[in-house]
Amino acid sequence: MVKMTGEGLSRRKVLAGAGVLATGAFLGRLSGGIADATMDVEYFGPVTAEVGKIRMEKWPWPYVKLDPAETAERAYHTWYRLYCGGAVIGSIFGQLAEKVGEPYKSFPCDAFIYMEGGITEWGTICGSNNGANLVTNLIIGPRTTDTEDGALMGTEIMQWYSDALMPVYVPKKPMITTAIPRTISHSPLCHISVGRWMKASKKPMNSPERKHRCASVSASVAYHLVELLNQWKDGKYVTKGTVGVQVYNISAQPDCEDCHGSNVPIPPAPLKKTT
Amino acid sequence: MVKMTGEGLSRRKVLAGAGVLATGAFLGRLSGGIADATMDVEYFGPVTAEVGKIRMEKWPWPYVKLDPAETAERAYHTWYRLYCGGAVIGSIFGQLAEKVGEPYKSFPCDAFIYMEGGITEWGTICGSNNGANLVTNLIIGPRTTDTEDGALMGTEIMQWYSDALMPVYVPKKPMITTAIPRTISHSPLCHISVGRWMKASKKPMNSPERKHRCASVSASVAYHLVELLNQWKDGKYVTKGTVGVQVYNISAQPDCEDCHGSNVPIPPAPLKKTT
Repeated sequence: MVKMTGEGLSRRKVLAGAGVLATGAFLGRLSGGIADATMDVEYFGPVTAEVGKIRMEKWPWPYVKLDPAETAERAYHTWYRLYCGGAVIGSIFGQLAEKVGEPYKSFPCDAFIYMEGGITEWGTICGSNNGANLVTNLIIGPRTTDTEDGALMGTEIMQWYSDALMPVYVPKKPMITTAIPRTISHSPLCHISVGRWMKASKKPMNSPERKHRCASVSASVAYHLVELLNQWKDGKYVTKGTVGVQVYNISAQPDCEDCHGSNVPIPPAPLKKTT
Repeated sequence: MVKMTGEGLSRRKVLAGAGVLATGAFLGRLSGGIADATMDVEYFGPVTAEVGKIRMEKWPWPYVKLDPAETAERAYHTWYRLYCGGAVIGSIFGQLAEKVGEPYKSFPCDAFIYMEGGITEWGTICGSNNGANLVTNLIIGPRTTDTEDGALMGTEIMQWYSDALMPVYVPKKPMITTAIPRTISHSPLCHISVGRWMKASKKPMNSPERKHRCASVSASVAYHLVELLNQWKDGKYVTKGTVGVQVYNISAQPDCEDCHGSNVPIPPAPLKKTT
């Protein structure tokens, strides 16, 4: 039922062999679905009726290959209006609105300004990552369809973001030309990503350098995201994405010691599969 | 230019008096906009052309008052198909699709399954909070319009979530009837919220109790979100929302010591306003 690309499938098989497959709600589809026999089925149809004039609940959305550098440049400059989430979403959907039309033309990109600063400055998930996951789930499709590539490409982006010396992308028309340091966040979170950069640069949050840095980070994510989407369009996408519950028995990012130090709590052991 | 409700405005004035107003990129609109004179204007129009058949980029979206308990019940059961973000979004937009029609009918609620487990199980922002912020920014409108109520209602929900003894809402038709503990997360993050509950309950991630708990948390958020939206519809919404950069000089949640202990780093001092 679920199409899996080669490497992802292999990893799943290894994990299943290690006895952790049953821990992941994520793998509900693979292991027979999350629905219990006792489930109240009244609410379980699609949330919205498929009678709208614009069929946004039909996947995959039409996609044509984009130029990563052009996308990154758009993302960089869009950041100064919509910040990180809106930059990633708007740079890609804006081009597809021009080249493809609907459903991109009708999609409310501006609303995703809310993702900025880790959701309205709360420092949680970097909007570049939040936006990238939305893009992969809208273009490729969510896990309610017959593919997990959208979900796994989103997690791949978060791991890549966490490991990269950021910003990777150098804009062609930068807002400032001052040299800035690059840092590794080891996390997809805004507070940690921007905090480590501020520590290295000694530049405050409202400095032109910090804005240029975050705009360049969004551009870097948009660039790499389009590289992956182009691979997917060519039928060549092999995911490097993994999900936390399979490995950690709790929803988690992979850097436990970064917050917990050497005293990492052990979650309650997963229930064994009975079916 | 920006409509502010009484309490929010007062808070802003206090903060401005304390000299921290200039630190907030969030307050760019209030302090004259983020646009620099050197800005490349080529990319700064709305991302998508306003020619779609469904006008999603027009705010506020039509809203009719909903029943909080009915919304919560829908959210609880939708969780078992779309998890936390999809539950909050789908419970509200599903009803509005029935009562109002577009643009809710066309909105792709299923894609927001990606918010589950703190974004595909990475444990970052709880999807209930991610989804609630999306809902407020889509119904009331983003900060690119002439109101900040959408943004501030989103932050209010995150603070309420962090402080609440969760889950608050008790479903009328629960999937299980076992008593479960309630816990305070002190954070809007999935990993911390569910981790503290798992520690208190000693129940694993894949247990029926944990699923029931997270579905009930989503229902609690949906309930309170509709209470606030109904106040807004009546013209009586006075925000309790605040944003991090104003207070902390970095995007942050308000519980610094929870991760940093007594050794909380001090971010570089903000640049003074020159205009």
